[in-house]
Amino acid sequence: MSSDFRLKEQLPELTEQIVATYTPKDSINHLGHCPLPSYTAVVEILLDLKDILYPGYRRKTGLHTGNIRYHVGSLIDSLHDELTTQIARALRHESRVQKKHTDCESDVDFEAKGQTMAIELLKRIPELRRILATDVQAAFDGDPACQTTDEVVFCYPGFEAITVYRIAHQLVKLDVPFIPRMMTEWAHKQTGIDIHPGATIGDHFFIDHGTGVVIGETCEIGRRVKLYQGVTLGALSFKTDDDGQLIRGSKRHPTIEDGVVVYANATILGGKTTIGKDSVIGSSVWITKSVGPQTTVVLEKPQLKVRNGKNDSLADEMNFQI
Amino acid sequence: MSSDFRLKEQLPELTEQIVATYTPKDSINHLGHCPLPSYTAVVEILLDLKDILYPGYRRKTGLHTGNIRYHVGSLIDSLHDELTTQIARALRHESRVQKKHTDCESDVDFEAKGQTMAIELLKRIPELRRILATDVQAAFDGDPACQTTDEVVFCYPGFEAITVYRIAHQLVKLDVPFIPRMMTEWAHKQTGIDIHPGATIGDHFFIDHGTGVVIGETCEIGRRVKLYQGVTLGALSFKTDDDGQLIRGSKRHPTIEDGVVVYANATILGGKTTIGKDSVIGSSVWITKSVGPQTTVVLEKPQLKVRNGKNDSLADEMNFQI
Amino acid sequence: MSSDFRLKEQLPELTEQIVATYTPKDSINHLGHCPLPSYTAVVEILLDLKDILYPGYRRKTGLHTGNIRYHVGSLIDSLHDELTTQIARALRHESRVQKKHTDCESDVDFEAKGQTMAIELLKRIPELRRILATDVQAAFDGDPACQTTDEVVFCYPGFEAITVYRIAHQLVKLDVPFIPRMMTEWAHKQTGIDIHPGATIGDHFFIDHGTGVVIGETCEIGRRVKLYQGVTLGALSFKTDDDGQLIRGSKRHPTIEDGVVVYANATILGGKTTIGKDSVIGSSVWITKSVGPQTTVVLEKPQLKVRNGKNDSLADEMNFQI
Amino acid sequence: MSSDFRLKEQLPELTEQIVATYTPKDSINHLGHCPLPSYTAVVEILLDLKDILYPGYRRKTGLHTGNIRYHVGSLIDSLHDELTTQIARALRHESRVQKKHTDCESDVDFEAKGQTMAIELLKRIPELRRILATDVQAAFDGDPACQTTDEVVFCYPGFEAITVYRIAHQLVKLDVPFIPRMMTEWAHKQTGIDIHPGATIGDHFFIDHGTGVVIGETCEIGRRVKLYQGVTLGALSFKTDDDGQLIRGSKRHPTIEDGVVVYANATILGGKTTIGKDSVIGSSVWITKSVGPQTTVVLEKPQLKVRNGKNDSLADEMNFQI
Amino acid sequence: MSSDFRLKEQLPELTEQIVATYTPKDSINHLGHCPLPSYTAVVEILLDLKDILYPGYRRKTGLHTGNIRYHVGSLIDSLHDELTTQIARALRHESRVQKKHTDCESDVDFEAKGQTMAIELLKRIPELRRILATDVQAAFDGDPACQTTDEVVFCYPGFEAITVYRIAHQLVKLDVPFIPRMMTEWAHKQTGIDIHPGATIGDHFFIDHGTGVVIGETCEIGRRVKLYQGVTLGALSFKTDDDGQLIRGSKRHPTIEDGVVVYANATILGGKTTIGKDSVIGSSVWITKSVGPQTTVVLEKPQLKVRNGKNDSLADEMNFQI
Amino acid sequence: MSSDFRLKEQLPELTEQIVATYTPKDSINHLGHCPLPSYTAVVEILLDLKDILYPGYRRKTGLHTGNIRYHVGSLIDSLHDELTTQIARALRHESRVQKKHTDCESDVDFEAKGQTMAIELLKRIPELRRILATDVQAAFDGDPACQTTDEVVFCYPGFEAITVYRIAHQLVKLDVPFIPRMMTEWAHKQTGIDIHPGATIGDHFFIDHGTGVVIGETCEIGRRVKLYQGVTLGALSFKTDDDGQLIRGSKRHPTIEDGVVVYANATILGGKTTIGKDSVIGSSVWITKSVGPQTTVVLEKPQLKVRNGKNDSLADEMNFQI
Repeated sequence: MSSDFRLKEQLPELTEQIVATYTPKDSINHLGHCPLPSYTAVVEILLDLKDILYPGYRRKTGLHTGNIRYHVGSLIDSLHDELTTQIARALRHESRVQKKHTDCESDVDFEAKGQTMAIELLKRIPELRRILATDVQAAFDGDPACQTTDEVVFCYPGFEAITVYRIAHQLVKLDVPFIPRMMTEWAHKQTGIDIHPGATIGDHFFIDHGTGVVIGETCEIGRRVKLYQGVTLGALSFKTDDDGQLIRGSKRHPTIEDGVVVYANATILGGKTTIGKDSVIGSSVWITKSVGPQTTVVLEKPQLKVRNGKNDSLADEMNFQI
Repeated sequence: MSSDFRLKEQLPELTEQIVATYTPKDSINHLGHCPLPSYTAVVEILLDLKDILYPGYRRKTGLHTGNIRYHVGSLIDSLHDELTTQIARALRHESRVQKKHTDCESDVDFEAKGQTMAIELLKRIPELRRILATDVQAAFDGDPACQTTDEVVFCYPGFEAITVYRIAHQLVKLDVPFIPRMMTEWAHKQTGIDIHPGATIGDHFFIDHGTGVVIGETCEIGRRVKLYQGVTLGALSFKTDDDGQLIRGSKRHPTIEDGVVVYANATILGGKTTIGKDSVIGSSVWITKSVGPQTTVVLEKPQLKVRNGKNDSLADEMNFQI
Repeated sequence: MSSDFRLKEQLPELTEQIVATYTPKDSINHLGHCPLPSYTAVVEILLDLKDILYPGYRRKTGLHTGNIRYHVGSLIDSLHDELTTQIARALRHESRVQKKHTDCESDVDFEAKGQTMAIELLKRIPELRRILATDVQAAFDGDPACQTTDEVVFCYPGFEAITVYRIAHQLVKLDVPFIPRMMTEWAHKQTGIDIHPGATIGDHFFIDHGTGVVIGETCEIGRRVKLYQGVTLGALSFKTDDDGQLIRGSKRHPTIEDGVVVYANATILGGKTTIGKDSVIGSSVWITKSVGPQTTVVLEKPQLKVRNGKNDSLADEMNFQI
Repeated sequence: MSSDFRLKEQLPELTEQIVATYTPKDSINHLGHCPLPSYTAVVEILLDLKDILYPGYRRKTGLHTGNIRYHVGSLIDSLHDELTTQIARALRHESRVQKKHTDCESDVDFEAKGQTMAIELLKRIPELRRILATDVQAAFDGDPACQTTDEVVFCYPGFEAITVYRIAHQLVKLDVPFIPRMMTEWAHKQTGIDIHPGATIGDHFFIDHGTGVVIGETCEIGRRVKLYQGVTLGALSFKTDDDGQLIRGSKRHPTIEDGVVVYANATILGGKTTIGKDSVIGSSVWITKSVGPQTTVVLEKPQLKVRNGKNDSLADEMNFQI
Repeated sequence: MSSDFRLKEQLPELTEQIVATYTPKDSINHLGHCPLPSYTAVVEILLDLKDILYPGYRRKTGLHTGNIRYHVGSLIDSLHDELTTQIARALRHESRVQKKHTDCESDVDFEAKGQTMAIELLKRIPELRRILATDVQAAFDGDPACQTTDEVVFCYPGFEAITVYRIAHQLVKLDVPFIPRMMTEWAHKQTGIDIHPGATIGDHFFIDHGTGVVIGETCEIGRRVKLYQGVTLGALSFKTDDDGQLIRGSKRHPTIEDGVVVYANATILGGKTTIGKDSVIGSSVWITKSVGPQTTVVLEKPQLKVRNGKNDSLADEMNFQI
Repeated sequence: MSSDFRLKEQLPELTEQIVATYTPKDSINHLGHCPLPSYTAVVEILLDLKDILYPGYRRKTGLHTGNIRYHVGSLIDSLHDELTTQIARALRHESRVQKKHTDCESDVDFEAKGQTMAIELLKRIPELRRILATDVQAAFDGDPACQTTDEVVFCYPGFEAITVYRIAHQLVKLDVPFIPRMMTEWAHKQTGIDIHPGATIGDHFFIDHGTGVVIGETCEIGRRVKLYQGVTLGALSFKTDDDGQLIRGSKRHPTIEDGVVVYANATILGGKTTIGKDSVIGSSVWITKSVGPQTTVVLEKPQLKVRNGKNDSLADEMNFQI
């Protein structure tokens, strides 16, 4: 009535068979003496930064004017070290990938570069707080279910995704590789909101409900923009080079000007598509061409089949999705 | 080949610059001697309540008739204390916000009020179990991929979101501020399903797949209703008062009567919109007007462009979203 | 100014009232001496398997050719034991449900069956690695925002969902009950992507962004298929038997042939619906009939109401969803 | 400036050399499929038992008459399971050692025997509480530095050692192998007091300060006995059999009758040595013969060399220990 | 081959029997709504204080002049809160014991008193650091095996015991009940050195090796004193009052003047016994009378039986202890 | 009824006062960018080494011939890295202390030296296992209360102290500073047995009970030696140089030849003292001169005062220690 120890004897052989599949050409192992940034450390960095950006809400309670300096100072100190380490790893990894090196050595002092970038990020915290405060205000002003700005900071997933995006975007501007994407994909898993860290987004930004929102790498979004759940700001078909390889980096996603509102599940596509200032895009609308300023676009009265009565044979005929 | 200790010397100055941005007017700090409810504690409360609602599934194994009394009794005891503490914090916070106080003192005994509310919630557990059992049955009856009701309790995200909603809704009815929203936003992050705790929902409720579902604060949903992923039960444009401030609290979201089924990605909007008893709303349908009872609404045969052949220049012209 | 100890005295009575609701007929308790698989253990199994499938990325750093054998061997050994235990629990539970037994005893040696299945899963790891490497390549080839294949392994939610699906699908093929669904629902919570473990999916599979994707139990998906966020591969209305009970297990979901691309929020429904080889389904398209090979289907130029100017009364009239 | 990866390449070879030393004859490995009792689990059992013996002192706070039943019931339930498992392991191990088996199989149902012993131990808890309460009283009555009996329970190492001894001694009486010694050696490490679980000790027992106390396996100690730090109740030279092997189990340690006090660092040796009722043995006394009842034994005025002045050459001559 | 579920059914009855032994008269339960100080919290307080007293050695690494202020400030802030809470608990407990109250209520604001005492302790940290630095120097100067003062701080058990004593002694001077003894008994368990927190000890104090050292409550120890392992500074027989109760608090332990050295296992007893300035007490000496200044006391050449040859019958006759 | 927030306002000032005491001359801070070895890491190293030396006993259960290679290989790999790091820290620290440097920089590659030493230690594991197996055998052969050799490995404190000593002694032989003493002082705290890592000790070494044993730095102990609790192998008074500084490193502790037994609380002092082969030193004997081979030394029949009757006035007169 228990497992058979003789059967277990084949496990070493199994192990050998698995290990034999780890080859240098294999794209899904990362063996060697040159570590990638640590996922756990990057998440911890985000949590520490949020403690500084919004003191007193989450992890550390009992903060007040008498102790806040010490709390922030301790966090800044450890963030300096951890950011330096992780950025240095990301830089070294990028350098190896670009030079197709397999070993870890290099003449470049990645630690020094990482430290410079880390300190620069920390210097931008006051500016990050300034812009994030506008995002909180935009959420409060835009959501009638919201009672206080504290709620926004405390539990709005949209605000969480924006916070992580704004941190990660600063790292993109500092040319830190790899880590910004780790950050926003973590926020994506937390919130269902996928904002590429390369996008440009102005202040007073608000995403309500948010699940399913996708904002592409080359989007440009103005100030006071508001998005609802399921909005896609996406690309059109991709350009490929002569070898059939994707051309990476060109402007592929739309431009959304100041004051635009995009309702739930609307889809706006293409690098040449611009939604003009103060325009309103209705729910479920699908747009691939530019729209002028102060324009309102909604679905035409939808074509619906409506029948009285609900019986199974009818439903079957009509092929309801399930 | 390592970080420069001299560069670190600017960190204290950086700390001062950050701390200087924490001002009393600042909307994104919560400094002072008067703590908010603890996010961690609220999540722990939910996990404890789920252990009581569905004994034997998740955290504590080996429960049987001989020990279940002890397990539940221990949880009830600690829930009493923790709920009392967290509700008292929420009440004190709300009182300060309403009175625009900055300090923590008050003549009100928030602890005593919190305790009364905590005990009242615990008293409602048997009723919560009764109604949640109908939700499990509805899931089993409505999903052909479901083998046993155990699966529903164990791993259906829709059922998890409903469980948290039903707990949070009881707190709303008890006039507990802040915490209900913390709870449902936690469930939102877990499941991608955003049910406002103020909504009213009858028994035998089932959400299948669920990612992207949004149910607004003033929704009224009857018994035996079934929703699929991506369904929005949302508001129309918001009323503002003479100062341009949103009017909060009025009926803004639709009414869904008993027995209605809403298929994936359908959108139903507006506080005056009612979907009549036993009606069926098809996938991707967009509705802003009321629909009578026993009515079936599906998309008209959609207008599609269909071309044979797939080549890149064509695709480009057609502007596929990516 | 604190909670009243006398009020606490009613807690034992409350406990009794709750315990009284745990009856043998109750569908939402699992009391008894016969445990279900442990959710925590199943998640741990997934994390261990991912460490073997993609060595060096996440939990264990510093792996290299000198120590990888030891790391994998240790994991395989503990996976053998844990998989055996959890599969045996699932088999015993299924047997009891099918025979409507209430106690835990049986003549079947579920441990021995569990061990055989556990070892068989471990034997399939090299093949899993082979096919998952094609999925990574597909992601890199299909996403212009992707810099290296490492990013895919490290942080693409779509790839995480596919990984868990591919593991769970092997367990389905081995006739392991209950656990595959626990696994994919865990991935669903992590990523917002809901792939039923019973679906059949070929190599080079890529899901971009992914939030809201639903792939039903009886889907058949070919090689080199690419899906975007919000795609539903769903069922039509369900068949019921003479008692009104759902008929479970029949082919209800579509077939997607090799090389098909389905853009964001498209909906494809029905067990008889087939999307032919190398076809392209545009964003937000809604399909319930088969489409031939090499066919492109996009929305007809959508019917939109466009008005210049944005003022509140107009918006109100137009009923924008919020 | 870092470790050399080439040097690491010899680690697999090193591993092989170490593994080669693990042979079946090797007395310091325990390889095989038949586990020993878990040290961690045994310590956890002790902590759980102490929570039941002295509710409200240490790990669980906030216990009161309304919840104590639930707390104890939960602990008893898990203690039943854990004790059953660990005792069964100890019985199986002992059986293998006695029969010089190398594999784990046996016709004996060690689990069933373990369960019987576990329940018997739990039944003895009320009696353990009765006798331990006398030990607390003895400590309070005997130590002028003690303010309340709570202090004794909370932080007297002597009382901790006695508690563990009394638990372990019950297991000895139930013929549980191996585990009693694990328990008292754990207490030995905690407190510096080494009481063999086989010793017999009456009620109202008090050990003050306690470091260095040794109480041998065959000691018999009456009621109301008091020991100070460094007291040894030891054996005389051991008997050996014809093969030169030690004869294990015979009476080798002294008998201490009711009411005896033994001051610090006294040494009492031998299985035939009895200290009569109500006698007093002074500090640093060394005894190998019996002493009658109501007898006082102290060191004769010690022979000391006393010189005035302290200078190094003198000290050197006198050979002070350091 | 497993435990019998029917046998488990007696566990609830067992639980009842145990709970029935928890009565109000019972000296070994602490049930009620009025908690004792938390052992875990008190230990944490000690660890935090040691981090401040000796920054950079143990728990927190990477401290330097740029971050030490923040680290200390954070610790001071949380120490303030935790000390206040624990001292208030101790004061309330003492008050109840003295007044033989059974409930928790009182007119005294124990929190306020606790806060005053907590802040006073924190104010004494600079003075504690001054005197502890002399103890480190004394250890370095007195131990030829010591290479650096860092070793003393890092791993000398004697220094650990002195550190805890010096903290606890300050609390005694502030009239904090209960907690000082918890602290020194914790150190006793860690190091085998039992210093009563009521003792008075001057600067430059050194205990080498230390196991078994006992220093009683009313000892007075001067400056530059050095003790070795096993030294007892104890009491003579206790005075009792007319009821036979011990008289607590009177001077019972010796006075050791400046510059005295006491070698290993020496015993000095009695409240009237004084060891004069700069005297030396040799190893294993036993003293109950005062000794003048600059006096050296060693054992007279010990009376030993020496025989050549070692055979078992002889050893037996001589009764070697084991 | 709670703490006063105004009083807390003095905490920042308190912090400044404390920080002001951290000066470069201060012997009890370790501020700077050059870390000491981590106490936690050193303890973890010991636990890992014990897992390799005695596989299957403690932390990792379920080890067998099929998986032991993987377990050991993983440990060796991480031990290599951790030992390298910690030894490098110790070397750098020693170098700074010797050169009275205050900063961390040096031309020496301490990492490389650390790695060489780490690998050398790992190479000595097979030899360590060989000699430790003789120590286990000696314990079994010497203790009639011992049932199996497993007990010795599992729970004998004496064997634990010897294990740590033997590891630390190898590090001493490799000239690793600081860490050996950290290791043996940790064992000292665990067991009450203080063996200096510089001592030399032959095979088949056994310490029974052990609390209070002290073995000095320059002891030389032969093969098959047995010590009981409280034995001191100590130094005589220390030599000082012309400046009054202790002369460190000279032979100060005794030599114990093969086969010697030293009973409880015996004291043997001085670098010139040798206890000859196969001699026996009785309990509580005090020796400062050499003893020839095969000699037995016991206390002369002790001079005791014995009186019948126990009454308080008598006891008082006789000055019993308490």
